[in-house]
Amino acid sequence: MTPGTVFGVGVGPGDPELVTVKAAQLLARSRVVAFFSKRGKVSNAFAAAERYLHPEAERLPLIYPYTVELSAQDPRYIAALSAFYAESSAHIVERLAAGQDVAVLCEGDPLFYGSYLHLHERLASEHRCVVIPGITSFAGCAARAGLPLVSTDRVFSILPGTLPEAELERRLRTTDPVAIIKLGSNFAKVRRVLERVGRASSATYVERGTTEQELILPLLAKTEPKAAYFSLILVPHAEASGAPAEGSGPLS
Amino acid sequence: MTPGTVFGVGVGPGDPELVTVKAAQLLARSRVVAFFSKRGKVSNAFAAAERYLHPEAERLPLIYPYTVELSAQDPRYIAALSAFYAESSAHIVERLAAGQDVAVLCEGDPLFYGSYLHLHERLASEHRCVVIPGITSFAGCAARAGLPLVSTDRVFSILPGTLPEAELERRLRTTDPVAIIKLGSNFAKVRRVLERVGRASSATYVERGTTEQELILPLLAKTEPKAAYFSLILVPHAEASGAPAEGSGPLS
Repeated sequence: MTPGTVFGVGVGPGDPELVTVKAAQLLARSRVVAFFSKRGKVSNAFAAAERYLHPEAERLPLIYPYTVELSAQDPRYIAALSAFYAESSAHIVERLAAGQDVAVLCEGDPLFYGSYLHLHERLASEHRCVVIPGITSFAGCAARAGLPLVSTDRVFSILPGTLPEAELERRLRTTDPVAIIKLGSNFAKVRRVLERVGRASSATYVERGTTEQELILPLLAKTEPKAAYFSLILVPHAEASGAPAEGSGPLS
Repeated sequence: MTPGTVFGVGVGPGDPELVTVKAAQLLARSRVVAFFSKRGKVSNAFAAAERYLHPEAERLPLIYPYTVELSAQDPRYIAALSAFYAESSAHIVERLAAGQDVAVLCEGDPLFYGSYLHLHERLASEHRCVVIPGITSFAGCAARAGLPLVSTDRVFSILPGTLPEAELERRLRTTDPVAIIKLGSNFAKVRRVLERVGRASSATYVERGTTEQELILPLLAKTEPKAAYFSLILVPHAEASGAPAEGSGPLS
């Protein structure tokens, strides 16, 4: 029997129409569809993909062991997640060994900050893994906000809001345009740093971008201290914004 | 008469199946389709979009004034390009004033290093502009190469190969994963810097990623001094690659 293939399928940041034609076609013929999910919650990736699925596709939810936000450095969290990814990989390997293909739904792009990466690193050396890229959240949010991301010879960076405050500040003291992701409980820290470096007034907050619950605000108009998990901040090139960020110092 | 709308439509990095469902649906009903092109060349964006176009769609090519690579700092180049974008915008405004919508095809994502940005900044204040995001080249190439881009709390950056050598080196002396774009005649410089900072052996070169002419090579196996314009280099997080990049210095 020919072993099955794992497909890491990007389904975009929320809007089901932001799935690619390639992904929609693959999903229409997939008979086993896996997706990461919090216990008791509808998976966003599943919601984006549902309309494309084969009516008889088997659903294989992979339920995260924690529903509350623990520090990514917490040893209990690291151990539990590692066991979870190993177990999830084992479930998938069973299907592959039986000759079945498995499509793993991935919000955004599978290889860009996604849970699929943890499966890929466990599976790719011994199993056929095919990745179908997806629309990243920063591209989806910028499109909805109508905001340029980056042009010409500028550097664009994606900064996780989980970075230590001093490192965030160092990175934001250049003129580079950036997207800041993983906000959640890091939002107040990120906002504070943007204010300190003079870039808060040009920044835009986007929550659940491309979905029906989308919210787009100037950062300064968002006053609650926490942000949705599915949110990000777009910060334009500092010259364009008139912000007093530093010019061509050693960090820019 | 209701003025028309400009649609900036991302069509992905090459493979026509990497167009989103939303873009395919929009293209199927668009009656005026604009696209940037070099004189005498088939536009890559047009090639990716062609199968989705309405059979009676009017084609509105926007032909770049130069076909050879001039320095982006050359005043003649800057003046010619500026006039070209102004003229292109004027062509589009004529259609909008006549009540027609205009779809502008964009390789990759419209707001991410694309020519559409130059139209958007001229049109968006007075005309309705709607952007449909696209698969970026770095996501498309990583998917084809099966290479993780970035995970956990790491920063991901896109570096144009047009940056001065010293700045490229400064940016690559961290452990961050990066994608280096705009290679062309900058390839030899970029490769030299990657070798100098000890990250060349872990880097992957991808040429015309996701197209039928795709070429994926370890960077060190690419020996010609020039690269295709549609090429990029993916450099993983330095720890993962075993490269001797610097750890947590002030730049990391």
